[in-house]
Amino acid sequence: MQVHIVMGSKSDMPVAQKAVDLLKELGITYKLDVASAHRTPKKVVEIAEESSAGVFIAIAGLSAALPGVIAAHTVKPVIGVPVSGKVNLDSILSIVQMPPGIPVGCVGLDMGGNAALLAVEILAVGNEKLASKLAAHRAGMAMKLEEEAISLEG
Amino acid sequence: MQVHIVMGSKSDMPVAQKAVDLLKELGITYKLDVASAHRTPKKVVEIAEESSAGVFIAIAGLSAALPGVIAAHTVKPVIGVPVSGKVNLDSILSIVQMPPGIPVGCVGLDMGGNAALLAVEILAVGNEKLASKLAAHRAGMAMKLEEEAISLEG
Amino acid sequence: MQVHIVMGSKSDMPVAQKAVDLLKELGITYKLDVASAHRTPKKVVEIAEESSAGVFIAIAGLSAALPGVIAAHTVKPVIGVPVSGKVNLDSILSIVQMPPGIPVGCVGLDMGGNAALLAVEILAVGNEKLASKLAAHRAGMAMKLEEEAISLEG
Amino acid sequence: MQVHIVMGSKSDMPVAQKAVDLLKELGITYKLDVASAHRTPKKVVEIAEESSAGVFIAIAGLSAALPGVIAAHTVKPVIGVPVSGKVNLDSILSIVQMPPGIPVGCVGLDMGGNAALLAVEILAVGNEKLASKLAAHRAGMAMKLEEEAISLEG
Amino acid sequence: MQVHIVMGSKSDMPVAQKAVDLLKELGITYKLDVASAHRTPKKVVEIAEESSAGVFIAIAGLSAALPGVIAAHTVKPVIGVPVSGKVNLDSILSIVQMPPGIPVGCVGLDMGGNAALLAVEILAVGNEKLASKLAAHRAGMAMKLEEEAISLEG
Amino acid sequence: MQVHIVMGSKSDMPVAQKAVDLLKELGITYKLDVASAHRTPKKVVEIAEESSAGVFIAIAGLSAALPGVIAAHTVKPVIGVPVSGKVNLDSILSIVQMPPGIPVGCVGLDMGGNAALLAVEILAVGNEKLASKLAAHRAGMAMKLEEEAISLEG
Amino acid sequence: MQVHIVMGSKSDMPVAQKAVDLLKELGITYKLDVASAHRTPKKVVEIAEESSAGVFIAIAGLSAALPGVIAAHTVKPVIGVPVSGKVNLDSILSIVQMPPGIPVGCVGLDMGGNAALLAVEILAVGNEKLASKLAAHRAGMAMKLEEEAISLEG
Amino acid sequence: MQVHIVMGSKSDMPVAQKAVDLLKELGITYKLDVASAHRTPKKVVEIAEESSAGVFIAIAGLSAALPGVIAAHTVKPVIGVPVSGKVNLDSILSIVQMPPGIPVGCVGLDMGGNAALLAVEILAVGNEKLASKLAAHRAGMAMKLEEEAISLEG
Repeated sequence: MQVHIVMGSKSDMPVAQKAVDLLKELGITYKLDVASAHRTPKKVVEIAEESSAGVFIAIAGLSAALPGVIAAHTVKPVIGVPVSGKVNLDSILSIVQMPPGIPVGCVGLDMGGNAALLAVEILAVGNEKLASKLAAHRAGMAMKLEEEAISLEG
Repeated sequence: MQVHIVMGSKSDMPVAQKAVDLLKELGITYKLDVASAHRTPKKVVEIAEESSAGVFIAIAGLSAALPGVIAAHTVKPVIGVPVSGKVNLDSILSIVQMPPGIPVGCVGLDMGGNAALLAVEILAVGNEKLASKLAAHRAGMAMKLEEEAISLEG
Repeated sequence: MQVHIVMGSKSDMPVAQKAVDLLKELGITYKLDVASAHRTPKKVVEIAEESSAGVFIAIAGLSAALPGVIAAHTVKPVIGVPVSGKVNLDSILSIVQMPPGIPVGCVGLDMGGNAALLAVEILAVGNEKLASKLAAHRAGMAMKLEEEAISLEG
Repeated sequence: MQVHIVMGSKSDMPVAQKAVDLLKELGITYKLDVASAHRTPKKVVEIAEESSAGVFIAIAGLSAALPGVIAAHTVKPVIGVPVSGKVNLDSILSIVQMPPGIPVGCVGLDMGGNAALLAVEILAVGNEKLASKLAAHRAGMAMKLEEEAISLEG
Repeated sequence: MQVHIVMGSKSDMPVAQKAVDLLKELGITYKLDVASAHRTPKKVVEIAEESSAGVFIAIAGLSAALPGVIAAHTVKPVIGVPVSGKVNLDSILSIVQMPPGIPVGCVGLDMGGNAALLAVEILAVGNEKLASKLAAHRAGMAMKLEEEAISLEG
Repeated sequence: MQVHIVMGSKSDMPVAQKAVDLLKELGITYKLDVASAHRTPKKVVEIAEESSAGVFIAIAGLSAALPGVIAAHTVKPVIGVPVSGKVNLDSILSIVQMPPGIPVGCVGLDMGGNAALLAVEILAVGNEKLASKLAAHRAGMAMKLEEEAISLEG
Repeated sequence: MQVHIVMGSKSDMPVAQKAVDLLKELGITYKLDVASAHRTPKKVVEIAEESSAGVFIAIAGLSAALPGVIAAHTVKPVIGVPVSGKVNLDSILSIVQMPPGIPVGCVGLDMGGNAALLAVEILAVGNEKLASKLAAHRAGMAMKLEEEAISLEG
Repeated sequence: MQVHIVMGSKSDMPVAQKAVDLLKELGITYKLDVASAHRTPKKVVEIAEESSAGVFIAIAGLSAALPGVIAAHTVKPVIGVPVSGKVNLDSILSIVQMPPGIPVGCVGLDMGGNAALLAVEILAVGNEKLASKLAAHRAGMAMKLEEEAISLEG
């Protein structure tokens, strides 16, 4: 398995689904688990320490400790996805403002898809075939945007 | 030992010192340790699970996961103290916005002294002697404020 | 009665209900009152000074002065619960940023359940039976999360 | 005495001084006291209920409950002055976001002078002589600004 | 007419209505106008300079310049009411953060009723009859709250 | 005169100076005045209505009503410059969040230089010579950045 | 074509439509394109460098880089319109806080109409006929507001 | 060269230096350039498209478009570092809130060192030797923290 997606709560599934969809589309193997830094912390540590994945995606809202706690138990790259709620700055700042020594790369609020793309970009370092696939995906997205683009004059 | 103070970094000492000073003044035994939820997570878990203290005070800045991670490994009360920095809303929201099931009681930014007072209030539940000591301390504070109070008329 | 829940307005009942439910589940006696720091301040002081409870839970939105005003009239532990509205930072910061000398432990926005759990944790200090009950409750929550956990691979 | 200034802490004196200076300049009698909604709450209530002043100015930082608590015990107008600190939105929102039924009029951060002017404007309702004095003061300020105004061309 | 309510846009009517209702209830005469500091500025100045009212209530959202612009053209008391929208901090900070010399008293977001109460408090300075009416209104509100108050035990 | 710079207070001079310097460098005539939307509002209206300038730059802090009030009295373009202080979001949001019908173009906090550049860009619409001058200035800036650029390898 | 409107995503069309409507009403020719600073960056540069328009309007949400990237490739005036979403401060601050040397004039959240008006104001510099049209439009708006204005007394 | 560090301004050097120091310590080759998304955009594109690095670190303050613009021109992983200033939420949100399709991984404010560590973690995917080096570095950091840790009892 190449990417391990961990979400802090079942309710984060819509955000995780975007990551799953993109990984499938790009032919990347993944595992998706629910594990909470606060409610099932031993499971989080176990995943962080024993997963065979190359990259982690950690999805959490509120005081989103999950990405940081995974990062604390691995030297593999961890991508954090803040989940929207009533405050929003809570999950964003909890994931971004990691202390020196334990990095997490935070993507945008609810941006499960971008987390997947960043994970694949990471797996594609030194893997030209995968990099080409990503470049094709990027080009396809641009082409689709261009085809659907509105252009009006008046 | 009655209160276990844990700070995420040596640089949080000025905030912790206020807690230490108040605990000493009120005759409460304490232990003060440095342990980081992100950099020395196993030590944090060990403290949370094995400390003989009745109450924890956890002091941290930035993405302040420390109070929440301690709370995840104990059912003893955990008081969180956000430490000021360049953003401030980061540590406050990281500590306040805990998910359902794992409570942390957050006091004000850099308010190590209030964390200590809350810890002693907790220890004083069902301990009339300690409650009286606290009431006397409170009364003394009010009296001192009153003595030093400015009163002008014009 | 062990826990006194005070809410600033009848409209805070959904948040208070979560506290009531958890206290019932854990076999803790409670009293629930409506009293406003601004609209019925004498009632608040009366509750703060005369309640036989060991711990207070104070629930309020907007300029959430209620937890702080209760704390000003007692040396028993006060847990504050900010209630969500149009701004949210108002109730959070009003409860968190208490001045030196008068502590309040703030839990998350609308987190009446966490306030109840923290109250029970406080009552469980030095009460092994209650601590075991809490630990069992925590373990049950984790088990339930684990049973319901999604795990996908692809 | 016409205006009662209450500040939550001796450290708020620089803000209070601006109010004192303006009241003196406009010939308004005043009393200045230190009383804390959290640390000396009974004194606050006593002032709110027994002061002979027509208007209150309440100055406080952090979780600035003072103006609201005074307002809770009087139907005289209360002007709140948030005091700056590490967060600033805390005192502003605590004073602005009062619940229905108990109004406070909030002026700008650290704006003790504006609080005094608003207090005098209130005293000048139905008092033409004082209103003229205020108008003259306003005109004088504008004239002084104009005299000192920079005007460059290039 | 005793109170002049000015709102920046017809869409602010629900907030103004709360003020109108309270003024009616307390027997205060009022006038309600729509005038925008940005779209009909001359009308605003005319109202500010020529109104026979004793107190102004100015209601505005977004970059809520209305209360400040009225205050710039009168030495009568001006109460500002920020109106909620997509940002909320915009109208609150625009009204609160007035520069030295030109005070506005800001009440809470959408709190038209509190603006009316503060206006009546201002009119009641030196008017014992009106002050008694206000005190009765306040007492009635507290009584109503008390009658409707929930009180549960378990 | 081509650009009229108005600042709300003499203390905004450092921000205005950056605008003056750039206008001089680009050979644009200007006038700089101090006029406050709140303290000298008639002067502001007079400038807005009678200035012969093609473009206005309005510089203000706190509740920065100045750009909006100028815009309310002219259909010439108005560029607003928020000035930094204790809150910063106050002046930014006051200038950005103008209501429909009265536009202001807001540049960055304290960015007097960018306001000048935007003013010159406006004057250069349909003026090829000035547009070339701007392009040359832009190219010069890029060249200077490039000359001073650090480039390290290791 | 006089004004080039660029929006970062098709979903920004409701905001762009307000700009289109106003430009049509004022008889200004325009072109509307979809181009994303992040997803179709070459198209953005091409538009910025080759458009025959006198003024750009760039509409974008989230990390709204579009206005800045257009501004980086032209010395024509660029007006930025932040689009609302879950955070709002993201698009506002991304557009306002441009670095020295590359100005963008930011209008209010979702204020496509104000962007159009500012664009026309820019085109009207030195064009008396268009300036008169704008003045008439402004006067018409004020008249309409006045006609629809509520005025109540009680 | 393995990591390409790009900073938006020479003044970001202290943040970049932390990245350089860590890369050196871990034996990773790097190149450091100054290039601004707004002031030297063609240079940014050139670096993004032609660099031989496996990973980019982009450091920028204010409206921090640099990481996003690099990401728009490459499918290699881009790590963004927000630089502190007067607002801080500007650079954080500009980097975090990227639109779907173009990911950036944001680390904490001024956290050049964490950006470097994340870059090395990315390079270590599938490179066991480098992963071991990172693990050793992490263990060394923990050991150093432990050696310097304060532990007091009282």
